Amino acid sequence: MIKKNNHPIGIFDSGLGGLTVVREIKKILPNEDIVYFGDNARLPYGIKSKRQIIECSLNNARFLLKKKIKALVIACNSSSANALYVLKKRLTIPIIDVIRPASQAACEVTRNKKIGIIGTSATIESHAYQREIRKIDSRIKVYTQKCPLLVPLVEEGWIHNEITDSIIKKYLWPLLKERIDTLLLGCTHYPLLKRAIIKQAGKHVNIVDSGPRAAYDLMRKLTSCDLLNATKRKGTLKIFVSDLSPHFITIGERFLKHKLEHVSVVRI
Amino acid sequence: MIKKNNHPIGIFDSGLGGLTVVREIKKILPNEDIVYFGDNARLPYGIKSKRQIIECSLNNARFLLKKKIKALVIACNSSSANALYVLKKRLTIPIIDVIRPASQAACEVTRNKKIGIIGTSATIESHAYQREIRKIDSRIKVYTQKCPLLVPLVEEGWIHNEITDSIIKKYLWPLLKERIDTLLLGCTHYPLLKRAIIKQAGKHVNIVDSGPRAAYDLMRKLTSCDLLNATKRKGTLKIFVSDLSPHFITIGERFLKHKLEHVSVVRI
Repeated sequence: MIKKNNHPIGIFDSGLGGLTVVREIKKILPNEDIVYFGDNARLPYGIKSKRQIIECSLNNARFLLKKKIKALVIACNSSSANALYVLKKRLTIPIIDVIRPASQAACEVTRNKKIGIIGTSATIESHAYQREIRKIDSRIKVYTQKCPLLVPLVEEGWIHNEITDSIIKKYLWPLLKERIDTLLLGCTHYPLLKRAIIKQAGKHVNIVDSGPRAAYDLMRKLTSCDLLNATKRKGTLKIFVSDLSPHFITIGERFLKHKLEHVSVVRI
Repeated sequence: MIKKNNHPIGIFDSGLGGLTVVREIKKILPNEDIVYFGDNARLPYGIKSKRQIIECSLNNARFLLKKKIKALVIACNSSSANALYVLKKRLTIPIIDVIRPASQAACEVTRNKKIGIIGTSATIESHAYQREIRKIDSRIKVYTQKCPLLVPLVEEGWIHNEITDSIIKKYLWPLLKERIDTLLLGCTHYPLLKRAIIKQAGKHVNIVDSGPRAAYDLMRKLTSCDLLNATKRKGTLKIFVSDLSPHFITIGERFLKHKLEHVSVVRI
């Protein structure tokens, strides 16, 4: 029997954007095995109803549990915002979402206590970030902005161009007007636009990306539960998706900054 | 028993964009009952694999067949391009897609035999329009352009603004450079951008929208099969969707140019 410590970490996302979180986990936990599930067949979650997001998230978690994962990372903001409490009720393994770690990081870096949050419609409308930040420090003011065009822009590969700059400018303006000093990127696609976002927000605004902090929280959780992989070998990455088109492969490699290997299509 | 002529017409789309086709059908067949199914839970089809699009399309058709439809309209371009032949094999009722009617209309209006086609990635990559136009007139040259950002732009409601104009300009440039005289809108979302498209394409380019021609072909088909509804009363419109968020209601009303009524969420 394989010792539980050596079981893989499970990560799911509505698509392949969560690979930006995988990259961060591999940086600080290089010998952990990872099983990733991307629900390409049903993406995007960002425009779905709460009921539908919960159903999809439960299906994804069930698939990963069959792979004997020792911990679960919800890399999808829409799932973290809408389905975390249901998953926590149903699962007995440690669960890391992307909202709590990013909120914690944003609260630590803000000086003027004005935080801006950008995300998909479902994430922003769930008020999950607002609730989380209020729990940490009720004096902090939170300003939010839905940015439905940013995901398609990343998927189209328009990372550095004038149109992307104009769209980001239009979305950020209402937040910058409020003089936020910290901007939380509430979607796993957004780190790819980080440079363009900094260009519009200005260098004085702290940019908080959920990936690195979620990876750090995962490491702490595994340590406290005595679940760190004790082997010295390099961890593996297995990717499962519910649908795969040529389009997804191109985008996946953009997120992972690496060739996509070991990808299997599964029906769940 | 209700006479078959008085059975409803079934229409499906990946979401609510097909309501632009419903509008055209209601204009010329006002006394027909319509049952519409929008697969919101699984949209967009435009980035899915062929296998996945076929599976979704079959599910949608099965749902509508239970409503005893006398004819089926596939309002979704991605489904028409990828699943029409499977549906034709499996169903015995008349089927109207959106690709053949629009191709026919484009071939009739072009003078210099240079047609441009814009659509989602799945539609363009299927080469369905190119094949259809070649069958009609092999001398016609076809130039295509995937426009993945146009659907999210319509859904965001950015119909008349400078960013939308810049994006359309960027997408149309390679087609206009080839001196097309006809531009086919290969997606049910695009009629909402018609004015912005005309602005960039110039008034000398014919704009062909699949909705009116598909409605006309449906009328001809019902006439030839003796399936026209003979009653004089105003037809009803029942809308079923696989998911419904506040976002979908706003968008649906934009497409239908009317309040969304009689909408039911079903699990299929």
